[in-house]
Amino acid sequence: MILCHMVDNKNMRDDSHRKPRLQKIGVFTSGGDAPGMNAAIRAVTRAAIANKLKVVGIRRGYQGMIEGDFIPLRSADVSGIIQLGGTVLRTARSNEFRTFEGRQKAWLQLQKAGIDAVVVIGGDGSFTGALTMSQEFNISFVGIPATIDNDMYGTDYTIGYETALNSVVCAVDKIRDTAVSHGRIFIVEVMGREAGLLALNGGIACGAEVILIPESKEQHDELKRFLDKGYRHKERSGIIMVAEGDEPGGALKIAEQVRREHPDLDVRVSILGHIQRGGSPTANDRVNATRMGVAAVDALLDDQKSIMIGIDDGKIVQVPFNKAVKLNHSIDGDLLDIQRMLNI
Amino acid sequence: MILCHMVDNKNMRDDSHRKPRLQKIGVFTSGGDAPGMNAAIRAVTRAAIANKLKVVGIRRGYQGMIEGDFIPLRSADVSGIIQLGGTVLRTARSNEFRTFEGRQKAWLQLQKAGIDAVVVIGGDGSFTGALTMSQEFNISFVGIPATIDNDMYGTDYTIGYETALNSVVCAVDKIRDTAVSHGRIFIVEVMGREAGLLALNGGIACGAEVILIPESKEQHDELKRFLDKGYRHKERSGIIMVAEGDEPGGALKIAEQVRREHPDLDVRVSILGHIQRGGSPTANDRVNATRMGVAAVDALLDDQKSIMIGIDDGKIVQVPFNKAVKLNHSIDGDLLDIQRMLNI
Amino acid sequence: MILCHMVDNKNMRDDSHRKPRLQKIGVFTSGGDAPGMNAAIRAVTRAAIANKLKVVGIRRGYQGMIEGDFIPLRSADVSGIIQLGGTVLRTARSNEFRTFEGRQKAWLQLQKAGIDAVVVIGGDGSFTGALTMSQEFNISFVGIPATIDNDMYGTDYTIGYETALNSVVCAVDKIRDTAVSHGRIFIVEVMGREAGLLALNGGIACGAEVILIPESKEQHDELKRFLDKGYRHKERSGIIMVAEGDEPGGALKIAEQVRREHPDLDVRVSILGHIQRGGSPTANDRVNATRMGVAAVDALLDDQKSIMIGIDDGKIVQVPFNKAVKLNHSIDGDLLDIQRMLNI
Amino acid sequence: MILCHMVDNKNMRDDSHRKPRLQKIGVFTSGGDAPGMNAAIRAVTRAAIANKLKVVGIRRGYQGMIEGDFIPLRSADVSGIIQLGGTVLRTARSNEFRTFEGRQKAWLQLQKAGIDAVVVIGGDGSFTGALTMSQEFNISFVGIPATIDNDMYGTDYTIGYETALNSVVCAVDKIRDTAVSHGRIFIVEVMGREAGLLALNGGIACGAEVILIPESKEQHDELKRFLDKGYRHKERSGIIMVAEGDEPGGALKIAEQVRREHPDLDVRVSILGHIQRGGSPTANDRVNATRMGVAAVDALLDDQKSIMIGIDDGKIVQVPFNKAVKLNHSIDGDLLDIQRMLNI
Repeated sequence: MILCHMVDNKNMRDDSHRKPRLQKIGVFTSGGDAPGMNAAIRAVTRAAIANKLKVVGIRRGYQGMIEGDFIPLRSADVSGIIQLGGTVLRTARSNEFRTFEGRQKAWLQLQKAGIDAVVVIGGDGSFTGALTMSQEFNISFVGIPATIDNDMYGTDYTIGYETALNSVVCAVDKIRDTAVSHGRIFIVEVMGREAGLLALNGGIACGAEVILIPESKEQHDELKRFLDKGYRHKERSGIIMVAEGDEPGGALKIAEQVRREHPDLDVRVSILGHIQRGGSPTANDRVNATRMGVAAVDALLDDQKSIMIGIDDGKIVQVPFNKAVKLNHSIDGDLLDIQRMLNI
Repeated sequence: MILCHMVDNKNMRDDSHRKPRLQKIGVFTSGGDAPGMNAAIRAVTRAAIANKLKVVGIRRGYQGMIEGDFIPLRSADVSGIIQLGGTVLRTARSNEFRTFEGRQKAWLQLQKAGIDAVVVIGGDGSFTGALTMSQEFNISFVGIPATIDNDMYGTDYTIGYETALNSVVCAVDKIRDTAVSHGRIFIVEVMGREAGLLALNGGIACGAEVILIPESKEQHDELKRFLDKGYRHKERSGIIMVAEGDEPGGALKIAEQVRREHPDLDVRVSILGHIQRGGSPTANDRVNATRMGVAAVDALLDDQKSIMIGIDDGKIVQVPFNKAVKLNHSIDGDLLDIQRMLNI
Repeated sequence: MILCHMVDNKNMRDDSHRKPRLQKIGVFTSGGDAPGMNAAIRAVTRAAIANKLKVVGIRRGYQGMIEGDFIPLRSADVSGIIQLGGTVLRTARSNEFRTFEGRQKAWLQLQKAGIDAVVVIGGDGSFTGALTMSQEFNISFVGIPATIDNDMYGTDYTIGYETALNSVVCAVDKIRDTAVSHGRIFIVEVMGREAGLLALNGGIACGAEVILIPESKEQHDELKRFLDKGYRHKERSGIIMVAEGDEPGGALKIAEQVRREHPDLDVRVSILGHIQRGGSPTANDRVNATRMGVAAVDALLDDQKSIMIGIDDGKIVQVPFNKAVKLNHSIDGDLLDIQRMLNI
Repeated sequence: MILCHMVDNKNMRDDSHRKPRLQKIGVFTSGGDAPGMNAAIRAVTRAAIANKLKVVGIRRGYQGMIEGDFIPLRSADVSGIIQLGGTVLRTARSNEFRTFEGRQKAWLQLQKAGIDAVVVIGGDGSFTGALTMSQEFNISFVGIPATIDNDMYGTDYTIGYETALNSVVCAVDKIRDTAVSHGRIFIVEVMGREAGLLALNGGIACGAEVILIPESKEQHDELKRFLDKGYRHKERSGIIMVAEGDEPGGALKIAEQVRREHPDLDVRVSILGHIQRGGSPTANDRVNATRMGVAAVDALLDDQKSIMIGIDDGKIVQVPFNKAVKLNHSIDGDLLDIQRMLNI
């Protein structure tokens, strides 16, 4: 069974064979905001216009779809947004959309606005919603993965992850200044309730002394080892990276335990929180968002539905929504080995 | 009574009239680390060497002084540090120094190392320690104010404050991306246990909707007003800046209260913590640290003691340690007025 | 004669005594763009609205005034711009405004739009234009100084200078990485045709080995000294900062000369150019732009005309346009002395 | 023929089967400096020490090898360098190494120091030198690709490219502020004498209006089209990205031509130059440099020689020096199509 298939963007430019069925598409962002969403909105809008489609921006996710909170998007409307964090179309949670009645309202709004197909920019929850709706009503969705957790099956890459990773690294570099100056241990909590990618790669990039991630329970022995014998000299400092979801309570709980067992140590906690989520996207987040935005329009023009655009080994692929579920990239065990080896 | 007097740096270059009494000086950092401390260490070291003095770096503050943790500093040793956060001489707390016995040990170590005078880079607590020691033993101290709180009497400027302020602004700009995207209220806690300068100026610079600082209790009415009638539309977001010490519990406690009174609002907390303290210093923090470092050596060459170097209206001044106590710059009421006026 | 006088912002809030003459003001940016201009536009707009005035944005400077390129500004229109570089009202040169006919057209446009008074955000050239026009026609101008050169008489501070300074420092920090890695000399050209402030303070902040500025010709001897004897060791690198206008040809010409006299040296040139001009403004640039924007509206409400708002020793002052000419802040000779002393 | 083969890092940890032949390795950086080189030096050093090897740092590239400019590297010596730009081991050109006599001297120095094998961090020229020397003398080299041009056959990734790309994007974002504010066209020249990757991806990421790269001559028609009809409205601004080597003379020459043909346009040039080369490496540059550093030591322990470590589809591979020549990654034509489509 083939889960995803590579696609040739060239088709889009030679679209003589296409039926002119598609006339107006919608685009919206859903779930947590991620840097690069605006670059994707811009690419979807302009690629659609270049292909003679009309574009409607749906504001505040599925909730805005239900309420008919729509705005027309012209080329100039997406000018100067490629470098902005957040999402100009905003995003929101919608409990109403979880009901059939809610989805029906949403469909009626799309009908009323003449929207033939929709590009949804978000995570696996957003795609599940799209799949459900497209099975109940006659509307096509194509998805673009955008989440700072990078935890989607079928794509090496989700929009926003790389920017978040660099925000983590930049913040920990600053914290290291104080850790070294005072000979302190900092327990730094980063986002990632079920996925430790940000903590793992952020920890490697910052030379963290210990990395605690939900995917590997052995790391707690590492922490013990570090504290017991590794941390003896009065000048030595340390950064312990913790993924948000490693333990309920996270960094604060671990700090409590460390202080109990090692009352002599000077231990501090830093919870990076929402500074990981905003900010101007990195070059790759912008380029990949742009490529995926163009590919999403291309897929709609090719009469595709219920697929997510992904990137695999640098190339654009299409993955059925059904397969594009939240699935942690198996953590590269080598990286943990490397971290342990270099922490000497 | 004149608290501080302006000084003419020119004297330093024409030092023919000086007795060659001073031969070796020490320099150390004390208290919390602040960006720009390294620029000050570099300036002290090179200004001293340019004046034919030997320089000893005292590591880990007063504790290192007690332990004789000294290293010679040559010009090359301070090369390439002007742009680094933290302090290459490290810093530490010392309970031992609070005792006479501790200070005696420290003095004996200085004696043994042939150190005639010392430049102390830190906050008011560090200067109080220096004053006590210089009154008990025959040793001169000159201070350079370095604290991100900018809460010293006698100087417009303490090293590190401006860098911290820009770190706050940079972080809140990112948080704003998410706040706007989701229509959320963020309560952002910044450092400043007794001084609200970081929260006030950071709040103005980020266009915060409400600023809560220890210096003004009326601001809580502002918060109430903002929540009660200002915050009605579903799209509106808000940043509420809180100085760390505004209330015991700070941002978390305020969030709890807001959620209790306004259960419909989507409220999040972000505690910026130690990312405010590190990082490469801003241009002004480097330039002023450099100027104060040179002026501190100049003061020692002029046989001064127990004074802090300060900057007043852009000019170097000297302030007796006795006067250079922690004293909050009275908050500029106009700034609060301005913030209220612009938040419409 | 008093050139400037301090003002009490408090008046603005107690404006019961004011005649309700003023009803609609214009605001525009003129000359080179400077980071913080948007913060000033926001403050002017909201302070005016808070005082029951209507606000019109004049686009593209005096040229837009002549063409009647006006847009109404409401509070929401200036939301989310405080952190943006450049100017949302744009700027332009206008030869037509230099003629009486041009200024007459501009005045008729203002008349037609019902604009009673105007806030001009720019440099000395912009203020001269405003002064001329206000003397010919019945219209009041108040100015806010914004130029990255910081070369205005009557104010310690012009909007954009500090951001530009930090952009210089950030760029030179990067160049230093390569200079040190290769043992190279870099000649770095920064903006400042007649004023060396950016080069001087940027050079101090980056630990530049030599600083060449138009205000001090002796510095060329410094360069010679540095190259002749200071630069001997194969590992030593150097940063030579040059203000754009130090010599016609600037950095390239100096590099040519250095290569001719020292063919053994590995010399490179970096012209920082327009990366000095853009970018998100620093905290101070935002706060001061905000304060001056509010003060400008206050001045108009106080029936002032032909004055520039300035900041002197941290306080708001008003300076007649006639006095607010381009005038280089006399370069602090101490800074050059310090630079020479520390470069050992 | 298999050019490269994937390797399993696990082997390194189970090295019971290895002969303890290797006892001391050297490591050096060569060619232009690239951000992330220090992360690679750190990883090589610590991975070697973790495998009971001694490590010698060879300073200033092949020239330092000839001169015996060696320093022992212990774990602590590479502490705190992972985040630094440039290279702490410095780099240099060596004409002497191009001669047999020079290489013989270098080999004798390695012999004398007891160095059994060497990790070379640099570009294709550095690897060619290593290959030549290893064929003449009994010494093994393993290479790590580090060049901001990302133009090596056999690896998707060279250290430093991603950081340079983000520096380009950050600089152009600033320039865009001024371009938009003034309605100006900026011609921005980025590095890449033979490879347009930085210009292409940087241009996509910044929404450049035209991208001129050596790999596609058709782009000059694009420029003509843009200037002829695209650029009509007085408010429209534009960024034209030019790879350094697109034409002799680069951006300045193009600007001259544009000004000649379109004297009405306000055209400026910005040559980004060496700010593209320095700075703190991005997260990926640090992580990949770390992975490749560990893999290089692993390869030496596996008795490999004359191979470059590469990354292919996210996995570590080994590529013979003979194949790892400078070869431009064929430019992704889709990206140029995308750029043209979105520039509407």
